Amino acid sequence: MVRVALIGQGYVATIFAWGLSKIKAGKLEPSGVPLGNLDLGIGISDLEIVGSIDVDEEKVGKSLYEVAKMYGLEPEPELRDIYVSPGLALRSTPSFLKVKSLDSGRSLGDAYAKFEEWLDDVKPDVVIDVTSTVYSEPVLSWEEAEEKALKGILPHSQVYAYLLLRRGNLAHVNLQPAYVAGSPGFIKRAEQSRSLVLGDDGATGATPLTIDLAEHLKERNRKILSIAQFNIGGNTDFLALMDPDRNDAKEKTKSSFLKDILGYDPPHYIRPTGYLEPLGDKKFVSMHMQWISFGGFMDELVVNMRINDSPALAGYIVDLARLGFLALKKGLYGTLPEVNRFYMKRPGPMGARHVSKIRAYYDLVAFAEELKKK
Amino acid sequence: MVRVALIGQGYVATIFAWGLSKIKAGKLEPSGVPLGNLDLGIGISDLEIVGSIDVDEEKVGKSLYEVAKMYGLEPEPELRDIYVSPGLALRSTPSFLKVKSLDSGRSLGDAYAKFEEWLDDVKPDVVIDVTSTVYSEPVLSWEEAEEKALKGILPHSQVYAYLLLRRGNLAHVNLQPAYVAGSPGFIKRAEQSRSLVLGDDGATGATPLTIDLAEHLKERNRKILSIAQFNIGGNTDFLALMDPDRNDAKEKTKSSFLKDILGYDPPHYIRPTGYLEPLGDKKFVSMHMQWISFGGFMDELVVNMRINDSPALAGYIVDLARLGFLALKKGLYGTLPEVNRFYMKRPGPMGARHVSKIRAYYDLVAFAEELKKK
Amino acid sequence: MVRVALIGQGYVATIFAWGLSKIKAGKLEPSGVPLGNLDLGIGISDLEIVGSIDVDEEKVGKSLYEVAKMYGLEPEPELRDIYVSPGLALRSTPSFLKVKSLDSGRSLGDAYAKFEEWLDDVKPDVVIDVTSTVYSEPVLSWEEAEEKALKGILPHSQVYAYLLLRRGNLAHVNLQPAYVAGSPGFIKRAEQSRSLVLGDDGATGATPLTIDLAEHLKERNRKILSIAQFNIGGNTDFLALMDPDRNDAKEKTKSSFLKDILGYDPPHYIRPTGYLEPLGDKKFVSMHMQWISFGGFMDELVVNMRINDSPALAGYIVDLARLGFLALKKGLYGTLPEVNRFYMKRPGPMGARHVSKIRAYYDLVAFAEELKKK
Amino acid sequence: MVRVALIGQGYVATIFAWGLSKIKAGKLEPSGVPLGNLDLGIGISDLEIVGSIDVDEEKVGKSLYEVAKMYGLEPEPELRDIYVSPGLALRSTPSFLKVKSLDSGRSLGDAYAKFEEWLDDVKPDVVIDVTSTVYSEPVLSWEEAEEKALKGILPHSQVYAYLLLRRGNLAHVNLQPAYVAGSPGFIKRAEQSRSLVLGDDGATGATPLTIDLAEHLKERNRKILSIAQFNIGGNTDFLALMDPDRNDAKEKTKSSFLKDILGYDPPHYIRPTGYLEPLGDKKFVSMHMQWISFGGFMDELVVNMRINDSPALAGYIVDLARLGFLALKKGLYGTLPEVNRFYMKRPGPMGARHVSKIRAYYDLVAFAEELKKK
Ligand SMILES: NC(=O)c1ccc[n+]([C@@H]2O[C@H](COP(=O)([O-])OP(=O)(O)OC[C@H]3O[C@@H](n4cnc5c(N)ncnc54)[C@H](O)[C@@H]3O)[C@@H](O)[C@H]2O)c1
Ligand SMILES: NC(=O)c1ccc[n+]([C@@H]2O[C@H](COP(=O)([O-])OP(=O)(O)OC[C@H]3O[C@@H](n4cnc5c(N)ncnc54)[C@H](O)[C@@H]3O)[C@@H](O)[C@H]2O)c1
Ligand SMILES: NC(=O)c1ccc[n+]([C@@H]2O[C@H](COP(=O)([O-])OP(=O)(O)OC[C@H]3O[C@@H](n4cnc5c(N)ncnc54)[C@H](O)[C@@H]3O)[C@@H](O)[C@H]2O)c1
Ligand SMILES: NC(=O)c1ccc[n+]([C@@H]2O[C@H](COP(=O)([O-])OP(=O)(O)OC[C@H]3O[C@@H](n4cnc5c(N)ncnc54)[C@H](O)[C@@H]3O)[C@@H](O)[C@H]2O)c1
Ligand SMILES: [Mg+2]
Ligand SMILES: [Mg+2]
Ligand SMILES: [Mg+2]
Ligand SMILES: [Mg+2]
Repeated sequence: MVRVALIGQGYVATIFAWGLSKIKAGKLEPSGVPLGNLDLGIGISDLEIVGSIDVDEEKVGKSLYEVAKMYGLEPEPELRDIYVSPGLALRSTPSFLKVKSLDSGRSLGDAYAKFEEWLDDVKPDVVIDVTSTVYSEPVLSWEEAEEKALKGILPHSQVYAYLLLRRGNLAHVNLQPAYVAGSPGFIKRAEQSRSLVLGDDGATGATPLTIDLAEHLKERNRKILSIAQFNIGGNTDFLALMDPDRNDAKEKTKSSFLKDILGYDPPHYIRPTGYLEPLGDKKFVSMHMQWISFGGFMDELVVNMRINDSPALAGYIVDLARLGFLALKKGLYGTLPEVNRFYMKRPGPMGARHVSKIRAYYDLVAFAEELKKK
Repeated sequence: MVRVALIGQGYVATIFAWGLSKIKAGKLEPSGVPLGNLDLGIGISDLEIVGSIDVDEEKVGKSLYEVAKMYGLEPEPELRDIYVSPGLALRSTPSFLKVKSLDSGRSLGDAYAKFEEWLDDVKPDVVIDVTSTVYSEPVLSWEEAEEKALKGILPHSQVYAYLLLRRGNLAHVNLQPAYVAGSPGFIKRAEQSRSLVLGDDGATGATPLTIDLAEHLKERNRKILSIAQFNIGGNTDFLALMDPDRNDAKEKTKSSFLKDILGYDPPHYIRPTGYLEPLGDKKFVSMHMQWISFGGFMDELVVNMRINDSPALAGYIVDLARLGFLALKKGLYGTLPEVNRFYMKRPGPMGARHVSKIRAYYDLVAFAEELKKK
Repeated sequence: MVRVALIGQGYVATIFAWGLSKIKAGKLEPSGVPLGNLDLGIGISDLEIVGSIDVDEEKVGKSLYEVAKMYGLEPEPELRDIYVSPGLALRSTPSFLKVKSLDSGRSLGDAYAKFEEWLDDVKPDVVIDVTSTVYSEPVLSWEEAEEKALKGILPHSQVYAYLLLRRGNLAHVNLQPAYVAGSPGFIKRAEQSRSLVLGDDGATGATPLTIDLAEHLKERNRKILSIAQFNIGGNTDFLALMDPDRNDAKEKTKSSFLKDILGYDPPHYIRPTGYLEPLGDKKFVSMHMQWISFGGFMDELVVNMRINDSPALAGYIVDLARLGFLALKKGLYGTLPEVNRFYMKRPGPMGARHVSKIRAYYDLVAFAEELKKK
Repeated sequence: MVRVALIGQGYVATIFAWGLSKIKAGKLEPSGVPLGNLDLGIGISDLEIVGSIDVDEEKVGKSLYEVAKMYGLEPEPELRDIYVSPGLALRSTPSFLKVKSLDSGRSLGDAYAKFEEWLDDVKPDVVIDVTSTVYSEPVLSWEEAEEKALKGILPHSQVYAYLLLRRGNLAHVNLQPAYVAGSPGFIKRAEQSRSLVLGDDGATGATPLTIDLAEHLKERNRKILSIAQFNIGGNTDFLALMDPDRNDAKEKTKSSFLKDILGYDPPHYIRPTGYLEPLGDKKFVSMHMQWISFGGFMDELVVNMRINDSPALAGYIVDLARLGFLALKKGLYGTLPEVNRFYMKRPGPMGARHVSKIRAYYDLVAFAEELKKK
C-alpha cells in the first residue's frame, strides 16, 4: 500500500481521487495514465488516499465524497472516509477564495506545528501539491527556506515543501508552477532527509504537444519562424491566472523549452491567455506555427484543441505516486530527472536541459524498468 | 561525387534540382534536409545530377534550366547542361499527359533496350523515382517482374526498378507509392546485384505528423476514438489522384501505420481528398482526432496545415541520395529498414513494422553514424 | 391544432418529435428554431404529431417513445401514442436497411392504395419528408410523375410527393435532396390541389455558413480564389452518402449557390466526404477559403466545426410546419420561395436565384409578418 | 477631383497611397474596395492625395515614394511628389517612435498654428486619420475639446479632429479607436462648420466577421454560450497595443456589439492579444464559439485566419474618401450613421445601435444610391 496525501483538493485532486476509486472498483480503464499498462511492481490499486488539505472554506471539513459531488462527479463510497483538513493559506492563496486555514488566528509557528501534527497523523509516503498556481522564486539553500518560511514570505507551495522535507522519508510531488524541484535548497535537503522532490508543473496539454511538434520539425531541419499559443479556460486555475503575477509564473514555465529542443529560440508568444467561464475545465487551445521548408518555402500549421485540463494531470498522478514510492523504496533520494523530464513543464533540478517529451518517454520507460529490477 | 539520376522531372524533382544548385551556390540553407546539419562524410555539394527522365512532351528534350522556369523558379546556370530524356510511358502514365516516350512506336523490348542505353550513358550511382503516382501490387519474385515487364503489364515504376536492378551496382530510391522496396522480388534481386532499393512513398506531410501525434497520445495512454484526415491540393500529383485507382494506392499507404504504433486500429478516414487548382503545390490538410483522457473524458484536436508539398520531399532526396550512395560503398545491399522507416510512408521490406517517426529519427541518426565509421 | 405527419422516422424526425414534446412540456427552450421567438399566430404547442412512416424493420410497429429510446433520448409520455407505420421502400431505400414496407409482397398499385388508406386515417395538414437521401431528377410534369410512379422508377421521396399531392389540401415539406419543390410537375399540381410543396434539402450546417461567408466577402469586394469544404459524420445519413449516387445528389445541391451570390463561380470542392462512425451525429466540418484583398494581398480563412447534424434540421421543422399550415390557411398554394430561400439548400421552384441566407432571413421575417396579417 | 490628406503615414496609409496609384495606372483591380464596382458618381481615379502627416523621424521629409519603398512596395512615380510633413506628437504618440514633430521645441499654440498653415496649403476635402492607436475618452462639448487641446491633455487624434473642425468645410474620417465620431462635441461642431466626421475605428478583420457570425446564429435562434477571440500580429499597430492603455482602447471598441446584435451579452473574451514580429502585417486570428442548438445540443465552431491587416483598411479608405466628399457636396453635415455602421467598429454617433455588418451593407448601398440621386 502507498499512502498518498493531497494538498489542494481542487479539480485535479478531486478527479484523481474519484478516478482512482473508479479504477479500483473496476469501473474505469486507466486511460490517461501514461504507464497504466506497464507492470511497475506496484499496482494502481495499491494507491490509498490517506489525507487531503485545502483552505477553501467550502471544502475544509467535507469528505472527498462531498467534494466530488460539488464537481458534478458520481463518487464511490470509499471517498466518504477521507476528510479535507485545513492547510496554510499564507499570503499566496488567491484572493477570490474564502479561506479557512491553520494560519488564520494563529501565529505562523503554531500553524506550522498544527500542519506537522496532521502529518504525524496521516503518515504519507507520497504527497501531491496541486494547490492554486503561485508565483515564486527558486530557493537556493535550506537556510533561505527556513528563514523565509518563518518570516511568512515564502509562498504556500514552498512552505509545504519545507515542512514536508523537514519531516523527511517521503516523496513530494509538486505539480504546480512554484519552484520546488527547481529549488536547489529543497533538492539538497531531500537527499539528506531520505526524501524525493519531483516537479515542477505538470506538462499535460499544449506545452508537451508544442515540444513534440518542435522536435518533429527539428528532425526535418525545418526552421521555425514563430510560434503563437493561446490557452483559455473556465476553471479556477485559469481564474487564478488572471492575476498577472501568477500568469508570469506560467509564462516562465512554458517557454523555457524551445531553445533546448531546437538549438535556437524562435520568436514566440506562449501564454495562458484568458478566463472564460462557460468553457469550464475543457480549455480551448489555439496554436500557430510557421517554418521554412526546403528551398525557402514557408509552411504553416494551426492546432486547435478542446482538452479536459484537470483529468490530464490527474492521470499523471497515478504514475507519479507509484514512481515516487518505488524510487524511495529502492533508496533513491533527491530528485528523479528521468521522471521529471517526461511529466513536468519545468523539470527539476534547476537548469536541467529539456528533451522532447517523446524522447523523455522512452528514457522514462527504461528508468522504470531499471527501477523495478533493482 | 555522387551521380544522381532523376526519373519523373515533375515538381519534386525540379525543386530538388533547383534547390540543390542553390545550396551548392551558397544561396540557400539546407532547411528541410533532415540530416542537413549532420556530417555524413559526403557533403551536399558532392551530389551531381547526371540525368533526367520524363514522358511529358512539354519536358522531354528541355534542359532542367528550362523546366525550372516552367515552374516559376529562378534557376542556377548549372541546370543548363542536364537534359530530360524520354522514358517509358507504358499504360500507367496519367491520361492527362501528352506523352513522348521510348515506347511509343517501338516494341517493348526495343524501348527497354533504349532505356538501358541511356543508363550506360548516364552511369548513375543513385536513381530517384518521383514519377506520377501509380497503382501496383507487390512483385513477389524476380521471375514475376521479368515476365510481367515483358508482357507490358507492370506499371512504369516497377519497370524502372526492374531495368535498374537488372543492371545493378546502384541505389534506387522509390518515392512514389508503387511497391518497389515493398516487393520481395526486387529486394532479393538487389542483394544479388550489389544494389539497394529504398522506399516506398515519401512520408513528408500529414502522415508523419499523424504518426507522431498518435505516438504522443499513446505515450499518455489516451485512447484514440477516431481520426479524420483530409488532403487537398492543386498540383499534378493531386490531379493524378483523382483517378480512383491511384487514390487507392495512396490510401493503402497511408493508414497502415496506426495499428503498429498504437496496438489497436482506431476508426479512421485518411485520404487525399481532392484537387483544387488554385491551392497549387501548397496543399491544405485538415485533421481531426478525438480520444479518451483520464476518467473517461473526451478530448479533441484539430490540425490545419498549409504545406508546400513538393519541397518537403525534395529535401529528403538530398539525404536519401547520400545515404544510398554511402551504404553501397560500405557494402550494404538489399534495402535499409533504418532509412526507410524514417523517410517513407510504407517502409520496405514488406511487412516491416512501423515505429513512430520520432523514434525512427534517432535510429536513423545512429545508423548514419555507424555507417560513417564503417 | 396543426396535424403533422413524419415520413422517415430517423434521427431528424426523432429529435424533432422528442424536442417538440419537451418544449410543450416546458422543459426545453426553443433554441435552434429560427422563428422561435416570433409570434406567428400559431404557437409551437399547436403542433401535434399524428402519424409516422418508415421502412426500417427495427422501427416499423414501434411507438415514437420506443424509437426515441433507441436514439438514447429520454422521451415524454405523449410519444407513446404515435406508432410508426410501414411506408414505400421501392428501389431507392439504402441497401444497408432491413426493410419492412407496404410494397414488399404487394403490387405497386396495392401498396400505393395502402399508403392512401394511412393518409385517410391520419389526415395530416403538414407532411415532412426526412427519409434517407435519394438520387433523383426533376419531374417536369404531373403526367411524368404519374407514369414513372406506376412503373416503379420514381424514387421514394417523389412517390410520396406524388401520392400526397394527388390527395391535396396539405403542405408537403421535403427536407431531403430529392427534387420535389424543384420539380415543376409537383409545383403545378400543388397549385391545382390547394396544396403547398416546400423544399428541397434543409440548409442547416456548413452550406448556409459558406453562403453567408461568401456574402460577407462579396460585400467587401474580396475576390474568392478557392473554397474547399469537407464534411464527415457518423450517422446513417452519412452512411447513406457513401453510395456515390446519393453523394452526387448532395454535391449538386451544395455548390449551386456560389455563382448566384458572388456573380462568378470560384473554384471549389464542396462535398460530404466520409463516414466515420465514432463521430456520430456530431459531424466534423472543415472549410478553407482564400481571397484577394486590397492591393492583391492574399488572405486565408479556415473554419472547423463540430455540429449536431440532426437537431439543426429538427429545429427548422418547428417553423416549417407552422409556416406551411399558416400559408395554406391563408390560401397560398404552389410553393413559397420566401420560405424555401432561407431554410433550403436548393430552394424551389427550379431555377430560383440564391440570395445569401442572411438576406433571406429578413425577407422571411417580413413574409411571416405579412402572412399573419392576411 | 477629391483632395485627400493622410494623417499617420503608416502601413495602412501607405498601402492606400500605393494601391490607389496602381489602380489609377490600371495595374490593379479594386479588390477589397467594398463599393468598388458601384457607380458612385465619383470614380476611384478622382481621388488625389495632396498631403501627408507623420511624426516618425524616419518618415518626415520623405516622399510617399520613399516611404512605400520602406514597406517593400514597388511604387508608382506619382508618389514622388507628395511629401510627409511633421504633425503633432503630443503625449499620446507611442514611445517606441523617434519623434520629429511640430510640437517639439515649440509652444502648443505655435505648433497648432503651424498645423493650420499646413492645412491652408494642402486644402483637403477629406482627411483620413490612420495614426497609431490611442486611448481617449469621448469629448462631450466643443468647449471641452478646446480647453483640453490648449492644455495639451487631449490625445493627438482628438487634437487633429479639433483643428480640422475649427477650420471646417471638410470630411474627417477617423479610422483609429479614438473617440472622434463617438464624441458629441465633435459631431455638433461638424454640423456647424459644414463638415462631416466619420468613425471610429475601421472594422476590417475579425470583428465584422464575428458580428456576422453572431447574426447568422441569432437568425437560427441558437443561443451563444461563449466567444473567445485572439488576435496576434507583427506590425507596429500590434506593437503599439502592447501598451495596456491602448489595448483597452481596442477592447472597448471590440466587444460593444454583441448585445446589440443578439439581445443578450454572451460571455466573451475578445482582444488583440499579442505582438509577434515574424507574423508581420498578416495577423493570425483564432476564434472559438459554442452555442445551444435545438434540443439543447451544444455545437462548436473555430475560425482561424491569416489576414493582411493593413490592406483591408486601405481598401475601405477608397470608399470613405468618396462617400465623405459626395455627402459634403450634397449638403450633409455632422456624421453619416449609414456609412459608419458598415465601415466602423464603434460607429458614431455615440450610443448608436449596432446592426450586423451584412445588414448595414444593404443600408449603405441604398444610402449611396440615394446620395448619388440627390
Ligand atoms: N492540467 C492541469 O490541470 C494542470 C497542469 C499543470 C499544472 N497544473 C496545476 O495544478 C494546480 C491545480 O489545478 P486545479 O485545476 O486543480 O486548480 P483548482 O483551482 O481547481 O484547485 C486548486 C485548489 O488549491 C486550493 N488551494 C489554494 N491555496 C491553497 C493553499 N494555500 N493550501 C491548500 N490548498 C490551497 C484551492 O482551494 C483549490 O481547491 C494548479 O496550480 C495548476 O497550475 C494543472
Ligand atoms: N511531398 C510530396 O510531394 C510527395 C510525398 C510523397 C510521395 N510523393 C510522390 O512523388 C511523386 C512525384 O510528385 P510530384 O509532386 O513531383 O508530381 P508531378 O506530377 O509534379 O511529377 C511527376 C512527373 O512524373 C512524370 N511521369 C509520369 N509518368 C511517367 C513515366 N511513366 N515515366 C517518367 N516520368 C513520368 C510526369 O510527367 C511528371 O513530370 C508522386 O508519385 C507523388 O505521389 C510526393
Ligand atoms: N441537418 C440534417 O440532418 C440534414 C440537413 C439537410 C438534409 N437532411 C436530410 O434529412 C434526411 C434525414 O436525415 P436523418 O439524419 O434523419 O437520416 P436518418 O438516416 O437518421 O433517417 C432517415 C430515415 O428514413 C428512413 N427511410 C429510408 N427510406 C425510406 C422510405 N423509402 N420510406 C420511409 N422511410 C425511409 C430510414 O429508415 C431512416 O429511419 C436525409 O435525407 C438528409 O439528407 C438532413
Ligand atoms: N485593418 C487595420 O489595419 C486597422 C483596422 C482598424 C483600425 N486600424 C487603425 O489604423 C491605425 C493605423 O494602423 P497602421 O497599421 O497603419 O499602423 P502603423 O503603426 O503602421 O501606422 C501608424 C502611423 O501613425 C504615425 N503616428 C503616430 N503618432 C502620430 C501622431 N501623433 N501624428 C501623426 N502620425 C502619428 C506613426 O508614425 C505611423 O507611421 C491604427 O490606429 C489602427 O488601430 C487599423
Ligand atoms: Mg488545470
Ligand atoms: Mg507532391
Ligand atoms: Mg443529418
Ligand atoms: Mg493594422
